[in-house]
Amino acid sequence: MKKSILRKYAKLTAKVGANVQKGQDVVIYANVDQELLVSYIVEECYRLGARKVMVEWGSDIVTRLVYKKETIKVLSEVTPWVIEKQKYYCKELPAMIYVDSDDPDGLKGVSQKKLAEVAKNRYPILKPYRDERDNKYQWTIIGAPSKAWAKKVFPELPAGKAMEKLWEAILYTSRVTDDPIKAWDEHNKDLEKRTKFLNSLNLDYLHYQSSNGTDFKVWLSENVLWEAGGEKTLGSNIFFNPNIPTEECFTSPIKGKAEGKVVATKPLSYQGQLIDNFSIVFKDGKAVEVHAEKNEALLKEMIAMDEGAAYLGECALVPYDSPINNLGILFFNTLYDENCCCHLALGMGFTNLVKNYQNYTNEQLHEMGINDSAIHVDFMIGSKDLNITGYTKDGKAVPIFKNGNWAF
Amino acid sequence: MKKSILRKYAKLTAKVGANVQKGQDVVIYANVDQELLVSYIVEECYRLGARKVMVEWGSDIVTRLVYKKETIKVLSEVTPWVIEKQKYYCKELPAMIYVDSDDPDGLKGVSQKKLAEVAKNRYPILKPYRDERDNKYQWTIIGAPSKAWAKKVFPELPAGKAMEKLWEAILYTSRVTDDPIKAWDEHNKDLEKRTKFLNSLNLDYLHYQSSNGTDFKVWLSENVLWEAGGEKTLGSNIFFNPNIPTEECFTSPIKGKAEGKVVATKPLSYQGQLIDNFSIVFKDGKAVEVHAEKNEALLKEMIAMDEGAAYLGECALVPYDSPINNLGILFFNTLYDENCCCHLALGMGFTNLVKNYQNYTNEQLHEMGINDSAIHVDFMIGSKDLNITGYTKDGKAVPIFKNGNWAF
Repeated sequence: MKKSILRKYAKLTAKVGANVQKGQDVVIYANVDQELLVSYIVEECYRLGARKVMVEWGSDIVTRLVYKKETIKVLSEVTPWVIEKQKYYCKELPAMIYVDSDDPDGLKGVSQKKLAEVAKNRYPILKPYRDERDNKYQWTIIGAPSKAWAKKVFPELPAGKAMEKLWEAILYTSRVTDDPIKAWDEHNKDLEKRTKFLNSLNLDYLHYQSSNGTDFKVWLSENVLWEAGGEKTLGSNIFFNPNIPTEECFTSPIKGKAEGKVVATKPLSYQGQLIDNFSIVFKDGKAVEVHAEKNEALLKEMIAMDEGAAYLGECALVPYDSPINNLGILFFNTLYDENCCCHLALGMGFTNLVKNYQNYTNEQLHEMGINDSAIHVDFMIGSKDLNITGYTKDGKAVPIFKNGNWAF
Repeated sequence: MKKSILRKYAKLTAKVGANVQKGQDVVIYANVDQELLVSYIVEECYRLGARKVMVEWGSDIVTRLVYKKETIKVLSEVTPWVIEKQKYYCKELPAMIYVDSDDPDGLKGVSQKKLAEVAKNRYPILKPYRDERDNKYQWTIIGAPSKAWAKKVFPELPAGKAMEKLWEAILYTSRVTDDPIKAWDEHNKDLEKRTKFLNSLNLDYLHYQSSNGTDFKVWLSENVLWEAGGEKTLGSNIFFNPNIPTEECFTSPIKGKAEGKVVATKPLSYQGQLIDNFSIVFKDGKAVEVHAEKNEALLKEMIAMDEGAAYLGECALVPYDSPINNLGILFFNTLYDENCCCHLALGMGFTNLVKNYQNYTNEQLHEMGINDSAIHVDFMIGSKDLNITGYTKDGKAVPIFKNGNWAF
């Protein structure tokens, strides 16, 4: 990868993604194979006036060993300094930058039950801190190829060529053009127009229909907004882009109000394994029946993870002709794959989509219909002939999607 | 590097170096370029029964940026979770494994004054924790080539070849033979014999003389032992090897009792810079006059770092015909270079060399003549014709070194 392009990507990350402020602390999470890119991001953060930049490195290989060899009890321990760190984050609100280069098969061979158990044990300990600083700080996720990831996406290519191809795909979908800052400015404006229109409709429910068997209704709350692209921090009002790339307009549906069957149109990569050719039937908002040709048991485990894991947290609209879908690549990574077409997510919803959410407690926001769970897993249901009709509170039908793409 | 040899090196590190115990926690410090070796060490730790293994990754490039861009005030901050971690280490006494692949020029371009200031500010905050767990846990340092380090040692070779040569040198000097465990067992036994003899002499002082101008006397305490190779943890009595490789028999001299001039026989790599062709004159144990053809100012800054930085903390005997010196390589890394020939160290001495040191407070041990400082910097004074004569308390002269090598 050319260093000049990497530098542009780093600048986009720090400026448009995290929008690092003068005097602010920054934490960067990355795997050990991303030293060069991370160093460029660190430089960009200082250029924007960061006070202190901290990098938290990880390693796929070591993480897999740790999960394989340690007991659930040891893995579930939250050491005192991790709590101390969370407290510091709540106090100082550093911007968080996640550079994702994880091997999609990184945790292959680790018992799914063990992973779920550990996540379940750690979640309530860390949740109060996550809740406390929720929406108050800027964060962004970007991707960067690792050899393992590139070989997973392009198994037929030699490692070097696969890395090159994955870099190309990442930079293309992330709009790292000659002037990425300008490209993102325009992109954000376009997304804003669409959400404005969706919010103006005051929709009661959406009806999804496709020839693949999808026939599904999901109810929306008038108190919950559609959002896309960037968002603003609570209090300090700093605009940032949590995901690079992003193509979706999304909202959180009402927990407990969804009916019918959805048929997945892409495989789902979950905890290092692929769940494929699956469908889910919802009744009273809950996933009550799942079928999968591949890894059905894993899918069942997933939705049994906790009470909220069988309910929907997100409902997102992405045209079938999105840049990512046009590439025709399965990235085995949600950041990209979720932006390829329409999707739903099981698990945690977005409390910050509730109008004036800052005036409510988290408990109140959940009572208002925003789902809560330790998981948030997107799965794709966009298809070439997907039609979505919105029904407004006053009974009007509005075409939202026609043949897979925006109807407006 | 062949994976099978790397695995032997990893086993030597975990078993002979840190001697990881069943049920023990382990912390591994390494740079991001050492993922494979680190993963092998992690595996070996689990094989030995480690309860939990944590890896703390670093990056030369990021560290340099951080030191360049952040203020002394910010760099001097010890965040609350670092203190929390220290407390945990004091309580749990994890074994510590340091994999050193640092670029010897890693901090080039960073103000030396800034580095010294930051170290001085952080030291008193962290010292109580270091003191509390001192001697109670196993630790070991090993080396592993990075590209930058290899190119520094072999500037004339292309990067790949330089890496290969540095691996060879490291594995040779670390005795990574067909059976490294056995080789280290024999080596430790040999070193033990020599220290037993030195301790039996009850030496009053050593007199160093060489044709290069060295003429120097240093006084020893009857309460302070000579040590070499491995040592045992306090309380749990676990034998471990802090350094891989190690060739030296060393002791801590009495603070305030050294006279004469020593001429360095190798350049000293300090904070990314090379101090070369230097000599130091001691009076009442203190470095009162220093000369250096290269970086004299840096040397002066070093000994002015704190009160103890101008006094000696170590006096070590290594034959001129050591494996490391025979290789004829300057490693630009103390772990290797200090094992090439006789040396002294400015700064912190070893309180654990005092007989029954566990019965004294740190303050008492320092009052007994063990120097204290934030630094501990070795510099080489071994030469081809170095003679060292020991004078016993009862006035007998005993030849210790003759023409650069052991006289006994």
